[in-house]
Amino acid sequence: MNNLLSAKRTYHLTKRVFHISPEKNDVNLDYFFNPRSVAVVGASNKKGKVGYSVMRNIIDDGFKGKIFPINLREEKIFGLKCYCSLTEIEDPIDVCVVVVPAKHVLGVAEECGQKKVKGLIVITAGFKEVGHEGAELEDKLVEICKKYNMRMLGPNVVGMSSYMGNGQIFNASFAPRAPIPGKIAFLSQSGAMLTSILDWSLNEGIGFSKFVSLGNKSDLNETDFIEALIDDPDTEVILCYLENIVEGERFMDVTTCSSKPIIILKSGTSAAGAKAASSHTGALAGADIAYTKAFQQTGVIRAESIQDLFDYAVSLSMQPTPKGKSVAIITNAGGPGIVCTDAVEREGLKIANFMPETIKKLRENLPAEAAVFNPIDVIGDAKADRYDFALGTCLEDENVHMAIVIMAPTATTEFRKTAQAVIQHAKAFPDKPVVGAFIGGHSVVEATIMLKDANIPCYAFPEQAVKALKGLVLHSDYQMSIETCDGPPVFPNINKRQVQEIFETVEKDGRKVLLEPEAISVVEAYGIPVPKTKLSTNPREAVTFANEIGYPIVMKISSPQILHKSDIGGVVVGVKSDAEVRRHYREIVDRAVRAMPRAVIYGVEIQQMSKLPDAKELIIGMNRDPTFGPMIMTGFGGIFVNFLQDVSFRINHKGITRKEALAMISETKVYSLLQGVRGQAPSDIDSLIDVICRIGKLVTDFEQINEIDINPIFVFQQGTGSLALDVKITLR
Amino acid sequence: MNNLLSAKRTYHLTKRVFHISPEKNDVNLDYFFNPRSVAVVGASNKKGKVGYSVMRNIIDDGFKGKIFPINLREEKIFGLKCYCSLTEIEDPIDVCVVVVPAKHVLGVAEECGQKKVKGLIVITAGFKEVGHEGAELEDKLVEICKKYNMRMLGPNVVGMSSYMGNGQIFNASFAPRAPIPGKIAFLSQSGAMLTSILDWSLNEGIGFSKFVSLGNKSDLNETDFIEALIDDPDTEVILCYLENIVEGERFMDVTTCSSKPIIILKSGTSAAGAKAASSHTGALAGADIAYTKAFQQTGVIRAESIQDLFDYAVSLSMQPTPKGKSVAIITNAGGPGIVCTDAVEREGLKIANFMPETIKKLRENLPAEAAVFNPIDVIGDAKADRYDFALGTCLEDENVHMAIVIMAPTATTEFRKTAQAVIQHAKAFPDKPVVGAFIGGHSVVEATIMLKDANIPCYAFPEQAVKALKGLVLHSDYQMSIETCDGPPVFPNINKRQVQEIFETVEKDGRKVLLEPEAISVVEAYGIPVPKTKLSTNPREAVTFANEIGYPIVMKISSPQILHKSDIGGVVVGVKSDAEVRRHYREIVDRAVRAMPRAVIYGVEIQQMSKLPDAKELIIGMNRDPTFGPMIMTGFGGIFVNFLQDVSFRINHKGITRKEALAMISETKVYSLLQGVRGQAPSDIDSLIDVICRIGKLVTDFEQINEIDINPIFVFQQGTGSLALDVKITLR
Repeated sequence: MNNLLSAKRTYHLTKRVFHISPEKNDVNLDYFFNPRSVAVVGASNKKGKVGYSVMRNIIDDGFKGKIFPINLREEKIFGLKCYCSLTEIEDPIDVCVVVVPAKHVLGVAEECGQKKVKGLIVITAGFKEVGHEGAELEDKLVEICKKYNMRMLGPNVVGMSSYMGNGQIFNASFAPRAPIPGKIAFLSQSGAMLTSILDWSLNEGIGFSKFVSLGNKSDLNETDFIEALIDDPDTEVILCYLENIVEGERFMDVTTCSSKPIIILKSGTSAAGAKAASSHTGALAGADIAYTKAFQQTGVIRAESIQDLFDYAVSLSMQPTPKGKSVAIITNAGGPGIVCTDAVEREGLKIANFMPETIKKLRENLPAEAAVFNPIDVIGDAKADRYDFALGTCLEDENVHMAIVIMAPTATTEFRKTAQAVIQHAKAFPDKPVVGAFIGGHSVVEATIMLKDANIPCYAFPEQAVKALKGLVLHSDYQMSIETCDGPPVFPNINKRQVQEIFETVEKDGRKVLLEPEAISVVEAYGIPVPKTKLSTNPREAVTFANEIGYPIVMKISSPQILHKSDIGGVVVGVKSDAEVRRHYREIVDRAVRAMPRAVIYGVEIQQMSKLPDAKELIIGMNRDPTFGPMIMTGFGGIFVNFLQDVSFRINHKGITRKEALAMISETKVYSLLQGVRGQAPSDIDSLIDVICRIGKLVTDFEQINEIDINPIFVFQQGTGSLALDVKITLR
Repeated sequence: MNNLLSAKRTYHLTKRVFHISPEKNDVNLDYFFNPRSVAVVGASNKKGKVGYSVMRNIIDDGFKGKIFPINLREEKIFGLKCYCSLTEIEDPIDVCVVVVPAKHVLGVAEECGQKKVKGLIVITAGFKEVGHEGAELEDKLVEICKKYNMRMLGPNVVGMSSYMGNGQIFNASFAPRAPIPGKIAFLSQSGAMLTSILDWSLNEGIGFSKFVSLGNKSDLNETDFIEALIDDPDTEVILCYLENIVEGERFMDVTTCSSKPIIILKSGTSAAGAKAASSHTGALAGADIAYTKAFQQTGVIRAESIQDLFDYAVSLSMQPTPKGKSVAIITNAGGPGIVCTDAVEREGLKIANFMPETIKKLRENLPAEAAVFNPIDVIGDAKADRYDFALGTCLEDENVHMAIVIMAPTATTEFRKTAQAVIQHAKAFPDKPVVGAFIGGHSVVEATIMLKDANIPCYAFPEQAVKALKGLVLHSDYQMSIETCDGPPVFPNINKRQVQEIFETVEKDGRKVLLEPEAISVVEAYGIPVPKTKLSTNPREAVTFANEIGYPIVMKISSPQILHKSDIGGVVVGVKSDAEVRRHYREIVDRAVRAMPRAVIYGVEIQQMSKLPDAKELIIGMNRDPTFGPMIMTGFGGIFVNFLQDVSFRINHKGITRKEALAMISETKVYSLLQGVRGQAPSDIDSLIDVICRIGKLVTDFEQINEIDINPIFVFQQGTGSLALDVKITLR
């Protein structure tokens, strides 16, 4: 593992090492990034052919290892000896690039396997992206790779490139031009996105340590490359354009461990559409929320646009990460200072509160008309000395974590000298990021370039400068949160066996939906407080149970088909006598039969009626995301849950910690209600946290659970606990 | 008025013509924009002096009218005869630019007035921006202008420029360089923002019809210039950078009438902070929401950043406004197409549904691997002909309102020919906007410039192209909504006199807060349904009133100091007998005295207890914004109103229309509850609309009302009305 990882992050590391499946662990892709030899099957001398472009890129971009072109019809390619087959080559081959038509690829792969090639780059298209037959071909290709323990990038890729130091690039792609060397690794699921971004990057002066076209991802995928790049000494920032993630849980394992920034543009946020789901949790979770949460929980920065992706990457590759969120602004004009202040607050950063010494020093040394509170306005006639003094003074202030220098050109502005002052102060405070916003055209060009050359991002407008700082803060925020992270709580008295037995019964019945008493028993076995409940199958039994539990009671229809009981008059609360129990039993069953004639009715549940001293109604739910697994939800519950939509989510990545559970609750509006408003006593938030963590444990232990809705869960006054009133569980 | 205004917009026009105060109506600033003669008081031959820069700009930028430099010490300035005083000049003077020190400005203004100068541009600083003395000087300056019926821009400005046709610019400013002529007018409250944006615009090739530095706005302000620019034939788009708006209501009058797009970057969104407010409406309204609402209600486009301001301006000055929101995407690569689709949905636009003929035609003429649903993927090997065919075909589709053409460079891409095809189709469909997203560097530069030269904005990334279209849609959306707008409802049976009398009583008492029965009477006089309420001053009277109203009743403490009665135990509901009334009377008063010993207690209100068949608790409130006047709020009410924050706002600009009231309700989550969820009957939304409109009428009629909170207002089942249960009113 990367030696930058701090010892304090043991929780995540421990978890990870324990969980990652051995065959996937420690992906070593060094033979792709630094191969000693490469073969190109389908190499060509004909300009315009893919096999020509690949050869040209490998040779022209300075690959210094051995190169073996393979083509049946040629003797020499690019002046190198050409082979008819891999078997003719005596040297070992690290990487084989395949550009022959799809129908020949399986044969080539087989040959590569026998030759003990370590890595395949299958540029050839015509696999699963073209339909059923292509998918079958692709499956066979993967089988061959497995058989020979060969790893494959592709098929259907532009290729990859890796900066190998000393100006050498191993460029095994048909991209028209080589990238500038840099510290950013870029993985792209879209080949066209990759090549056009490369073209764009040359103009912008953005360099890459690696680029990888991921293609169909049938063997190696984004997680494999991210894992390898975390250890790559040439890479400081990992950028991805992704349309999906193949191994969600492993992705979370790997990214959790990264101290390097990972920035992802995940597209297709709108395409998935609303999933059909019977649970509230499913209905309330948007199609894309699991990705958002998985990224947040592992510290991956989610870019909203291509521009953001590169703005974040550039600032993270140039600047240190700040120790906090407080920004100092130095400007020579009021308007842009205000615009910058707005942007700082909009992006969730803070305007730094200067210490009294700082303000005193600024006041004593700047002109009387200058503004010495943040933003510092050195006013329009400022020369470089005022910028120099103001920036130095505020960077010395421990309340300042980073700075933005705004310059609006006036007749007296000293462009070069001001840029030099900014560069010197940035060097003097290596843990405080500094960015520039030099507004203007010709007059600021030179100063802007000076800053960029000194690794200080500089933009035309203050808002972009703030965005750049935000990228740094997003990364440092997560790195700091990890240090204080503890694992999910351990619950000693859990009756796993009872749950196992209930699930077996349900599965034996051929059911997917648990009856309410079953569902109640499941959560009860995991220590979640529930009201006493019994299933009666006739009015007499109902009366017996009601007396055992004690009046008043609640009566509910019991049927696997009837999920929303109160909608069909299947629930009566506050039943107080034997006579009432008998009457309601018949009426409830009658209404259920009329409303849903085909429903199988098991009887009527008799439930303890919990007293409600200031009880708040919440919901706790779980919905299974196809990529990332169980997703836990909590928020405002009761019958208006769908209308209020006051809920928050977390991926249950090996359980939920108490800190995560509290964070979930505090993201909802109902949190302020739980804390006690308008004279009401605070609610038992600890008890709610406990239930959320127990649900996390339950869904971690039992993968067959598809959905859970506890709605409502009553949360009582502080110290008096909570009660899961209505529990629905369905299995997969 | 502008002849572009359609006849259908009579409602707004009628309102406006009726309401605008005569002295402000029809601001004619033609002598500023097209003066025949200009005097410069403080003109100078010395480079570096402001008086030098102004003279140089006026002469060099091609002003063809008469120029009169004034300076005591010079004989000639820039080769022109120099005067000692305005009185020496025989010709009439349209505009006088003043650059002398602040202490001399009043004298110059007086002289200008006597000389019958029409417009002053006071560049000189040192007025209210420097403190109390400066403010006094500024007040005197404004008085002089009023006395002579002279209009003034400034003081404390960079100046202004106006394109006068034939390459001539009247550039009465000290900006270092002249702008490129164009169709965008730019007003800026920050001088530095203006000059640095000008510098930037030269590099970007963005041109201006006018620019105006607004400075201290002590006479002419943004609204005056916007009103004049709406009529300016050289201006197509009006851009503003503003830190505040001076005349809020007039601003709304003027902007409502504009068929030209007005785009404003309003800064200081965070600076104002939360206002202290005793009403829910005040507490829930953010510092900046009145600006947001005023802009939305008048169709002003609010830019969130300087970049947005110009992106919107450029697309609105180049492209037509679309007839709807549906976008067609043509791309030669899948990834950028998906990114574009995400952006379209994120920005609130729609992916067009092609008609079957369109899909058939595309399918028949594009290669089998092409995607013919939207986005159309003409695939990587596409030459210009496929773009040509696909764009032409989808623009013919009536479901398509605009198009984005994405190009990711490949070996076969025909850059110039594709650009030509795009230009031709854009010309052939003059009412359907087309924008480009050509991703790349060197390879796309020429094609990008070709598009821009043909007035087709073209960006490096799809997200920016979508943003450009969004600017167009924001403008067309409002233009279309105006056509179907009717005025606020007319209420025949309103007892204005009763309200007048109550307010007089309250004012006579020296109170600001109405007692609850007074507040109830006020809204009752405006036809809002209220429960029967009487104020009892002793237990015996309370019993009498309770019997008159009929049991059960509600009892509430009556005191101008006690606003949140239930918090101190001042409210008892469901009182059922004479004995209970007597007992509660004493207890309520006791609790009030203990909780607030200094409160003046008037007695206990006896109120009808309304039965609640499925009643929903809403809130309706009014809070007075210092800039835009009364702001109406509605949403989820009851005691949790602050916690749920499910409310919406409108500026009450001369009343609220039924359509606006419905729009307000439908912006809240409680709307879905009012429509009936989970088997509940729908609520009487019409009745709620009626109450909102009546509150609008009330606050329009009585400017002395400071705040209103009706919380809760019970909204009953459809057809059974609503009931204002608790009403608070405070006066200014």
